[in-house]
This record gives sequence, C-alpha cells and structure tokens, in this order.
Amino acid sequence: MPIEFSPWVAEQQANVELALSAALPQAAPAGLCRAMRYAVLDGGKRLRPLLVLATAEAVGAPAALAMRAACAVEMIHAYSLVHDDMPCMDNDVLRRGKPTVHVQFGEASALLAGDALQAQAFEVLLPEDGSVPAALSVRWCRLLAVASGACGMAGGQAIDLASVGVALDQSALTQMHRLKTGALLQASVMMGAACADISAAQTQALARYGAALGLAFQVVDDVLDVTADASTLGKTAGKDAANDKPTFVSLMGITQAQAHADALLDEAHQALAHTGLTAVERLHQLADWVARRSH
Amino acid sequence: MPIEFSPWVAEQQANVELALSAALPQAAPAGLCRAMRYAVLDGGKRLRPLLVLATAEAVGAPAALAMRAACAVEMIHAYSLVHDDMPCMDNDVLRRGKPTVHVQFGEASALLAGDALQAQAFEVLLPEDGSVPAALSVRWCRLLAVASGACGMAGGQAIDLASVGVALDQSALTQMHRLKTGALLQASVMMGAACADISAAQTQALARYGAALGLAFQVVDDVLDVTADASTLGKTAGKDAANDKPTFVSLMGITQAQAHADALLDEAHQALAHTGLTAVERLHQLADWVARRSH
Repeated sequence: MPIEFSPWVAEQQANVELALSAALPQAAPAGLCRAMRYAVLDGGKRLRPLLVLATAEAVGAPAALAMRAACAVEMIHAYSLVHDDMPCMDNDVLRRGKPTVHVQFGEASALLAGDALQAQAFEVLLPEDGSVPAALSVRWCRLLAVASGACGMAGGQAIDLASVGVALDQSALTQMHRLKTGALLQASVMMGAACADISAAQTQALARYGAALGLAFQVVDDVLDVTADASTLGKTAGKDAANDKPTFVSLMGITQAQAHADALLDEAHQALAHTGLTAVERLHQLADWVARRSH
Repeated sequence: MPIEFSPWVAEQQANVELALSAALPQAAPAGLCRAMRYAVLDGGKRLRPLLVLATAEAVGAPAALAMRAACAVEMIHAYSLVHDDMPCMDNDVLRRGKPTVHVQFGEASALLAGDALQAQAFEVLLPEDGSVPAALSVRWCRLLAVASGACGMAGGQAIDLASVGVALDQSALTQMHRLKTGALLQASVMMGAACADISAAQTQALARYGAALGLAFQVVDDVLDVTADASTLGKTAGKDAANDKPTFVSLMGITQAQAHADALLDEAHQALAHTGLTAVERLHQLADWVARRSH
C-alpha cells in the first residue's frame, strides 16, 4: 500500500526544494542570483513539479530524470509570478507570505530575475552530461516554450490585462484561463508523460486530465479569492473583484462555480481512468488536492 | 568573386525580415502579437542574424537551416531591448527611431511581449516538422539559454544596474560587457557554427572571433554614445554619461577607446585566420562593419 498523500507531498516538496536549489545559480553577477533564489525557493505548493513527478511515476519513468522537468516548470511559474506582481501588472506586495521580489530587490532586479529564470528553465532541460536523451530535451523544451509563450501563459496574461472591466462570457473566461494557468499545468503533465514512451491514446488521456485539472485550479482560485483571507492565501485576497476583473464567481456565483470545479474534477478522474495506466493514484490525489484546497 | 558587402547585407537583412515575420505569431491573443511584431520587425541592423548566417556559410551549412538560429537570436535581442527600455530600467522612449514598445503599447504589454519573445525564440529552434536534427536543436537551445541567462546577458544587465556611479576598472567593465552584449553576439557565431560538424580547434577559433567582435561592438558603442547624435543613432545619445554609468570612453578617453576597438578588430581577424576555413570573407567584413560603424 502506498504511503498516504500528505507525507508523499511533503517528501516530494523537499526533494523539489533540493533540486531547485541545485539547479539555480549560486553565484550569478551583482546579486542577480539572490533575487532568483528568493523568487523560487522556500515557498509555494510546488503543484507543477508534483504533477511532473506523479505523471512520470504513472508512466514508469525515473524520478531523477523527471526532476529536471519539475524544476523547469517551477522556474517558469516563479518567473511569471515575479513579473505578474510588478507595479505595471498586478502591483502586488505580498506573495507566499513574503514581500514580492520587486518590493524586496527593486523593480529592475525583479524584471531581470524573471528574465533570467526563464532562460534558466530551458538550461535545466539541456544538461551537458548526457543524462537526458536529445529527443527528450527537444520534447520538453518545445512543450515548455509553447506553454509559456504568446499562445500559452503570456497570451493568457495579455487577455487578462485586456479584460479589466470587460464583460467576458464563460467561454472567453475559460479560454483566458486555459492559457494563463492551464497551459503550464497541462505542460507539467505532458513533460512528465514525455519521460517514457506511451501510446498516443494514453498521451491524449493525460492531456485531458491536465486540461481539466488546470481549469479546476483556476475556478477554485476564483472561489478562494472571495472566501479566504490573506493570511490563509499567503497573498492579497479579493484583488480580482477590487480590480473589476471577471471571474468564475462573478459570472456564475459561488455555488455554481464550486459545482463547476467539482465537474472538472470528475472529468480529470475519468480521463485518468482512460489512460489504462495503473500507477495513477498520485494523479487522482493531486486532482482532489487542487479542487478541494483551502489556499 | 563574391558580391560586395553592402548588397549582401541588404539581401540578408531582407531575408531575415521575411523569416522573422513568418516565425512570429500572427494571431496571439489580445494584441500581444502586435507588440511582439513591433518590437522585432522593421528595424535594426540585424547584426546577430548576419553573424549566424555568415558563420553558417563559413562552415558550409545551409542558410535555410541557419535562418532559424538567426531568428531566435534576434528575438532574444529584441526582447532584451524591450525590457531594457522600460521605465524601471533605462527609461528610454526612442529606439530604432520609433517610440519604444512600452511607450507605444503600455508597460504591461511591453513586459509580456518581451517574455513571450523569449519563449518564442526557443520555439523557433524546435520545429515539429523534423527539419532540424534533435542534436542540433539541443545545441542551439543550450547556447541560447546560457548566453541570455544569469551568467550571460541578464547577468551583464544586472552588473550594469549595479554599476551606476561606481568606479569599475577596465577588467570589471570588460566582464560586464562580455556578458551584457558579448555573450549573445558570441552565441550568434557559435549557433551558426553548430550547423555543421567542425573541429574543436575551429570551434574555439570562431569563439575567439565572436568574443573579440562582441567586445569591439561595445567599445564602439561607447565611443558613438559621445560622438554621434540621436538622429544618427536612432536612439537617445549621451545616456550613459548622463546616467553616470562607466564606459570605455569615461575610463580611457575617446582616442584610447578607439585604439582598443581597433586592437579587438585585429584580434577578430586573426582568430578567423586560425579557423582554417576558407569562406570567411563575410565574417571579416562583419567585424570591420562592427568596428567602423557610425551608428
């Protein structure tokens, strides 16, 4: 019988923390690495790395191999938070219970640290020691570039920017979130899946799992933004409503939004059942964790 | 006899413009691609792409293959200019004779366009059509990630930020510029060289060429910053002195700085002679172009 979920999460979070610390520069010039390490280390649920590692386990790939992909997606996620928190974007001062990077190090350093983290994410996927086959590095880098670029995360953030005070319908809101947060969450699953050879049908089922989980994550985020407080969230609560941004809650109400999250959770579980893979327990648990979290 | 240099430059610049236009998104969400295309297209000397293409020619690689690397380095260069011009960095309003991206599209869009351009640069190196061998994509991506990250361009910009009002000596100033602009210029040469199998000695000689040319570029930039005006430069002149930033001119005076650029130009020519390659005429010409340009 596998160990319970919470100890597994704690163990993997510790492994990810160690791997991230080793993968980040120790001595970049002019204190740049201090801002990079502050942005990445000692915080966060590590949901994306956990998705990579759990998917790698499901497809029977070695954790040591998958850990590179886990670090890369977390670096991309961290850079996006650094830039998103800047005054010209969301102007947030609190993140993971700590001052945001630009508050701590200044705006220019935050901008550069985010830029350098994006490059570092790709570098992690391209070791010179031959430990990653070239074909896998290529698949990883392609998944990561597409998920974080103009038709992925950055594109979703652009829609978000343009949608302040705009009446998006559910379809447009869904599209925004599929790009803004869903693309990288789904890419985490796909980068884990890429660590082994599985069938096209299995890949597609995992993609459906990642998409459903990714959207559920955002719907729950919108619910928590109005129901939780800053000390629970570790970031400023109620920002979306205050900024007149459309959310699933403003569109459907809290009860309906929660029901939507539940339906997406069902979809994620069903997609996993269609993979035909047996070691998917962690992925089931991660979906539950995302849909039922309190922060 | 090869065609003269100027017509070759004009022809390659036109080829690069077409390739960049095709490699940039046409329909990213919420106008993001407008800012990305504005940042990249219709301007610039295209020095980095020309270095890629000329090096590929020198090693006997197909121009169509090298063009992907040419586009990628130019996208990285363009994103760095977009972010560098932002108010929290150099706060520049004029670039290539046009309003900078944040002036034209707003700061948030400039931030996102730069971020998306970095991702796009990697995506260009990873086509799904099998036209680039996996091993080459890996080498390209690694060169690009290292040259643009914390121990490359971003690291150099961090030193630059930290050096306002600081008395850097020539060694520290050189190190800053080797990272800030030199790393990507050298990577342009190395990415062209990666398009064919050449010896380690040839690779090293090309690396020395790239390093000398990269530093010469910056020394000349410092000279032009005090001798040229904005209409010639297409950007604000005299910024470095106004910002109390150390330059080769503030350190050595104009005459000595010019002599330093000439010595670096000699070094570039000599390194080329050591490659043992025959089709290096364009690389010689590009070095002259860099060291003797008026803007």
